[in-house]
Parts: sequence; structure tokens; C-alpha cells
Amino acid sequence: MESVTERLYAVSLDEQDVLGAFRSRFVADDSGLIYLDGNSLGRLPQQTAVRLQRLVAQEWGERLIRGWNEDWLALQSRIGGKMAQLLGAQADEVLMADSTSVNLYKLALTAVLSQNGRSKIITDDLNFPSDLYILQSVAQLTNRELVIVPSPDGIHGPMAALAAAIDDQTALVALSHTVFKSGFTYDMVSVTALARRVGALMLWDMSHSVGAVPGQLTEAGAHLAVGCSYKYVNGGPGAPAFLYVRRDLQEQLHNPVSGWMGQRDMFEFGLTYAPAPGLRRFLTGTPPILSLAAIEPGVDLLLAAGMAQVRQKSLRQTSYLVDLWAEWLRPLGFTLYSPPDAAQRGSHISLGHVEGWRIDRALIEQMNVLPDFRQPNLIRFGIAPLYNSYLDIYTAVCHLRTIVTERLYEKYSRDMTAVT
Amino acid sequence: MESVTERLYAVSLDEQDVLGAFRSRFVADDSGLIYLDGNSLGRLPQQTAVRLQRLVAQEWGERLIRGWNEDWLALQSRIGGKMAQLLGAQADEVLMADSTSVNLYKLALTAVLSQNGRSKIITDDLNFPSDLYILQSVAQLTNRELVIVPSPDGIHGPMAALAAAIDDQTALVALSHTVFKSGFTYDMVSVTALARRVGALMLWDMSHSVGAVPGQLTEAGAHLAVGCSYKYVNGGPGAPAFLYVRRDLQEQLHNPVSGWMGQRDMFEFGLTYAPAPGLRRFLTGTPPILSLAAIEPGVDLLLAAGMAQVRQKSLRQTSYLVDLWAEWLRPLGFTLYSPPDAAQRGSHISLGHVEGWRIDRALIEQMNVLPDFRQPNLIRFGIAPLYNSYLDIYTAVCHLRTIVTERLYEKYSRDMTAVT
Repeated sequence: MESVTERLYAVSLDEQDVLGAFRSRFVADDSGLIYLDGNSLGRLPQQTAVRLQRLVAQEWGERLIRGWNEDWLALQSRIGGKMAQLLGAQADEVLMADSTSVNLYKLALTAVLSQNGRSKIITDDLNFPSDLYILQSVAQLTNRELVIVPSPDGIHGPMAALAAAIDDQTALVALSHTVFKSGFTYDMVSVTALARRVGALMLWDMSHSVGAVPGQLTEAGAHLAVGCSYKYVNGGPGAPAFLYVRRDLQEQLHNPVSGWMGQRDMFEFGLTYAPAPGLRRFLTGTPPILSLAAIEPGVDLLLAAGMAQVRQKSLRQTSYLVDLWAEWLRPLGFTLYSPPDAAQRGSHISLGHVEGWRIDRALIEQMNVLPDFRQPNLIRFGIAPLYNSYLDIYTAVCHLRTIVTERLYEKYSRDMTAVT
Repeated sequence: MESVTERLYAVSLDEQDVLGAFRSRFVADDSGLIYLDGNSLGRLPQQTAVRLQRLVAQEWGERLIRGWNEDWLALQSRIGGKMAQLLGAQADEVLMADSTSVNLYKLALTAVLSQNGRSKIITDDLNFPSDLYILQSVAQLTNRELVIVPSPDGIHGPMAALAAAIDDQTALVALSHTVFKSGFTYDMVSVTALARRVGALMLWDMSHSVGAVPGQLTEAGAHLAVGCSYKYVNGGPGAPAFLYVRRDLQEQLHNPVSGWMGQRDMFEFGLTYAPAPGLRRFLTGTPPILSLAAIEPGVDLLLAAGMAQVRQKSLRQTSYLVDLWAEWLRPLGFTLYSPPDAAQRGSHISLGHVEGWRIDRALIEQMNVLPDFRQPNLIRFGIAPLYNSYLDIYTAVCHLRTIVTERLYEKYSRDMTAVT
């Protein structure tokens, strides 16, 4: 057996990889780009390009308005039903709609309004900022207190402090399943239990976990969830989000943004809102069909691979990157800004370095490796098991090492401009 | 000069049409379809197909996450700024975002919350049902009364009754500029003046007018507007909507659905919401890029044609259809469910008939003419001046006449199924 720092070790891991064939199902350019930003925007599935070509030329171009009845009206439920399998939910509990932030607003607002007399909304400071902003609005509108529980180290979720904060005054607990900076991943079952124990509702944002970490919504008895489809699901830039409402709550809760797509019979054009039965009441306006339809082939690829296999490879790949970090990068001043315990990880690894910004620039511009960057000095390596190889990881780490040892980053400015 | 019922009259009108060349800028199939449903879903511009091909294959497929900085982050403002010219607004007053219903919710809610001590929201019963549903939610959430002023005849806006209802207890007046059933079009300037006179805010839904009727938002001093881009703007199925906030109100009002795209510096990832200066605060989540980018070529076509020319042709075409109705269809039992006064029209004409549903089926299935249908018995003919010819209108009316005189509709069932 080769040592972890040998290239042939990566090659042998790729040879044993049961998901290796999925790599060819994605579009790649000819530049040899090593793409480690699937946690921000997933690659383009080959089949999605085919689907979009047909959607534009035939469905819009020729079928025109008839496209709605021939396929488009079914997309929110059909893709949602497939997405449910990634989330560990039932098919009739998930719909594709709007953006994650709009869905979070809808579900958080109705959740809080349904919990009369409870004064608090609980979250943590690892949650994605947009979620915090939405929760701030909901708290203000409903005159509740938003409690932001701090992480002990910026990396791990504050489990003990959350357990102490979640009490019988808590209306709603809203957390990211996998957090965006460190990749820390909550145990969905045990955290949901904290909320359920006191009669609070639990809402998960699964944007950074879906398609990489199998969801456990049904197993946990979680009440609500939202998330995006453009990261590990490979749905395309800004692809519509999903929302999940546990079946028994669907007719107890209300959609505060009550548009015609959630009306009982939208084509009767009645003057008074009457919510559709079941989950469809949480729909609002007409969905963006080009972006919506583009999600489906990516979901199909994940279902073909199987989430258990995807998670297994993801754990192996993040562990491999951590092992390489320990051997080669830690001595060069890189810090691990992700959980050392693999079970607490999502599928991205964040590394800090005092020269993080300039190293990131060098990695992109000289090495043709594309990770992403989060202020102040974190380089995030998103590993998408369907298309990232072990050799991708090995090569990226070799380049990082070279950039620091050869001081190749010094030609870049410390000035940061907006980078996604 | 030929008579209005002669085919050569239509041919001569097309020959004189200064916008005739725009017809070839749209994709058409080989079936000879006469498409009169541009008021529901506009045709596909040739350039949009080209743009989407590049967007998918190159921008997403190869540039990947870099696409955000290279173009995508600019789209909401850039396309909004162009759309502003269609609306009679300034470039920094319009953004593309979300769906019409979500935008209506955001603007109506902040408008009402900003009007302390005013108890009423005023609309009419010609407004699009989704708007009524959203206004019902806003009224309920803010404990205001929603007053739905009835149209005198189902066709014309209730001008006198609105003038009486809009008083110093009115927080917000929300109306459709062009209404969806009859096509009646409000005089934006005089109705906005009714609201302004008493210190109420005026919100226009321009979904059914934009791209066919020039907007007058600045001239009217209107406060707020929303609308879709998939009808006469030809932005594609479910394309993102627009929102307009008058410049001086942008920093007085708040976005209740306060997501990260409206944050002052979204890539600082601060924990506390701080709204961006100006209009961008009304953004919420990540926009669906495929559907968003697809809007731009359609807007460009309208700008190249000029809204004055578009309106002039639209008025001539709806008048031509009304003239043909008077000669040929009225004697066969068709009623005009649109304003006889051309100045009060949008760009669609609704015709009622006791056998409307079966006639609609015959028109589609036997004649390859595609209008749309609204319950209980209205056939709507949407006329898109950029691609509909006078001959389209002439041919459609001839077929209608044949269907009724030859009783070709009798083979169809009176049962209705959902039709968009």
C-alpha cells in the first residue's frame, strides 16, 4: 500500500471508486480545470444540457403555452418528490419553489404564528447570514426574540448551549444542517429531539448538505426544511429551492405569501383565497421553468448513485484531504477550519491561512484549481463525490504546497474584491 | 381601398406595417400555427435561444462559479434598467426578482406598514386573483381591511366607485394596469392622482400591460409597481418578475423578506441585516439565472421597436379585430368582453360565446389557432405587435366564423379540464 502522500495512492483510490463512472456524466472544458467549488455551484450534467435544448427549442419555441399542461405544471411536485429521497422525506412532503430565503420566510413566519404565546426563535451564529436576516425580519414582524447561540470555536455547532437555550418559550429552532463556513454537520435526529421535547418546531436549512449528506427528516420527525438545489444537486446557477413540510402539519400551517399557485383551483380564478389541500398551498407565484426543469437531471444522477454511496465517498474524500493537510499543509501554516471528526463533516473542508486570500488567487490563476473563498482567510474545498476524483484532491494539495513553499502568492494584492 | 372583411385588406395592412420585420426575430415552427396567446406566454426570440445556448454550455458549463462575477450578479439591475424604459420609469427604479406575487407581497406589506393609522387597502374585482390573495394575506397580517371595489359590468374598471372609496383612511391602492379578463386598461396618471391626493400609496401590477402598453410610472408619480416578463416581454415560461420603487421611497421603505441579496455587503457575511442603499434592498434570495438571463433579448427587441410604435400597432390590431367582430362575429352570438373604446384597451380582446369552450377547442384542434380561454366562456385573443400580423387576426376570425356557421364545435365535450 502506498503512503497517503504518494500520487499512486490517489490513483488507486480512484481505481477502486464505485462512483468513478459518474464523472463522465458532467460537462468538462478542455482546460484541465480542477473544480472544487461544487459546494457553491455544481457542475453541468450532460443530460441537463440536452434537456434545456429541448425545453427551449421545442417546449417553449413550438409548444408554447401548451407546455404548461404537457409538463411544466407537474415539475414542482415531480422534482420535489425525487428530491425528497435525498432529504429522507416522503414524496408528498417536498416541493420546488422560489428561493431558499423566500421559502424560509414562508415557513418560519407560519411556524412562529402557529406557536401562540411562545416568545423565542433560536438559531446559531454558524447559520447562513441570509437565514439570520430572514429570521430577524420574522422576529420583528411577530414581536418575538431571536436568540443567536454562539459556536464555541467558530467550527462546531454549540450543542450544549442549544440544549440549554431551547425551552418551553421556544416557538421555532432554525439551523443549517451543514454550516456554510466550517462544514460542521448537525446530527439531525438529536437536535430535532431537543425541539420536539419542548413542543417547539424544528426547521432545517439543508442547502449545504443536500446531495452530499443523506437527510433524515422523517427519521428525526423534523417539522420543516428548506434548501437550495444549485450546490451538490447540480441544478444550475440560482436554481429554485425546495421546501419540506411534514405531512401532518401541511394543513395546520398557512402560507403567508398566498399566491395563485397555492389556490385550491387556480384556474377557477375565484376572488377569495382558498388553500389547496396538502403541500401545494405553500406555492406562491409562477415558477421559472427554465431554471426549474434544469434541476431534474442532477437529482436523477444522485438517485442513480445512491445517497449512501455518495456519503461514503464524501467521507473518504474529506478524510483524505484532511490526511494530506496533516502531512503537508499544517507545517506550512494552514489550519483546519472543519471538524476533525469525519462524522461531523459535510462535503467541504475549510482551510485557514494568514495569506489565504493571496494563496486562493494563486491557486486559481496559476494552477487552474478553483476552490472558493470566505472572509477573512478561509479557502473552502467543496468535494462533489459524483465528479471529483481523489486525484483532483491530491493535485490541489500539491499546488497549495508549491504556492506556499515557493511563495508564489506574493505577486497578488491583499486587496479583496467581491468573490462569490 | 378594400373593405375590412377582405383578405387583401389584411395583406395591405401588413405591407404598411413598420414593425413587420420583427416577426422574423422569433422562432416559429413549421406547422403554420397562428399564435394569439402572447398575453399568457410570449414567443421565443431567436436571440434568446442563442443566449441560452451560450449560458448553459459556456457560462455554467465552463466558467462555473466565475459566471457570477462575470455577468450573473449584474443581471437583475441591468435587465431591470432596460425594463424601466418599458414602464416609463428610471433605470435605478426597477429590478428583476422573484415572482410577481412575491414582489407584490414585499411591496404591499412594507407600504401598508409604513402608513400608520390608515385602515384600508383598496383594489377592484378585476384584479388578477393572485393579487387579491396576496392582498388578503397582507390585510390579515397587518389587521387592515381589504376593500374590493366591484366593476360595473365586469369589463370596465370602476372609476367612480374607486374615486369614492379612496379616502384618508386608505393606506394602499393596488390595481392591475391592464386587467386580465377584459383587457381594460386604467389611465395610470389619473388613478394614481386619486391615491396621491389623499396621501395613499399607489401600486400597479403591470403584468398584462408591460411590453404592449407604455407605462407612465414617473409621469404619474406612482409609488410602487410589479409585473411579470413572460407575456408581451417574451421572457420565457415563468420568467422572473420585476419590481419598481419610486426613487425617493427606496430608503423609506423596508423589505420584509430581507435576504442576503439585499444586504449592504453580501460577501461580508455579517450576522446582522443592514439593507443595501437604494433599490437593491428589495432583493431577497439568489435569482434563477437561466430564467433571468433569458429575459434580456426580448426586452431588447421591444426597445429596438420602440414602445410608441408597439402601442400604435397594438391599437390598430385590436381595433381591426373589433371591426371584424362587428361585421362577422356579433351576428353569430359572440359578445365583446373588452372595452369598445380603444384607448381603454390593452393588447388582448376577449370574446364571449355561449359555446365558448367548445369553439375554443375547435379553433385549436381543427384550425391550428391558439388563443387562450378563461372561464366561463371567454376566448381571449392576445395580440403581440412584434410577431402577430393582421393576417393572423383575419385568419383566426375566418376560422371562428366557419366553426360556428358549420357547427364544427359540436363534436367537443362541454366538460372543461384545466387549461392555462
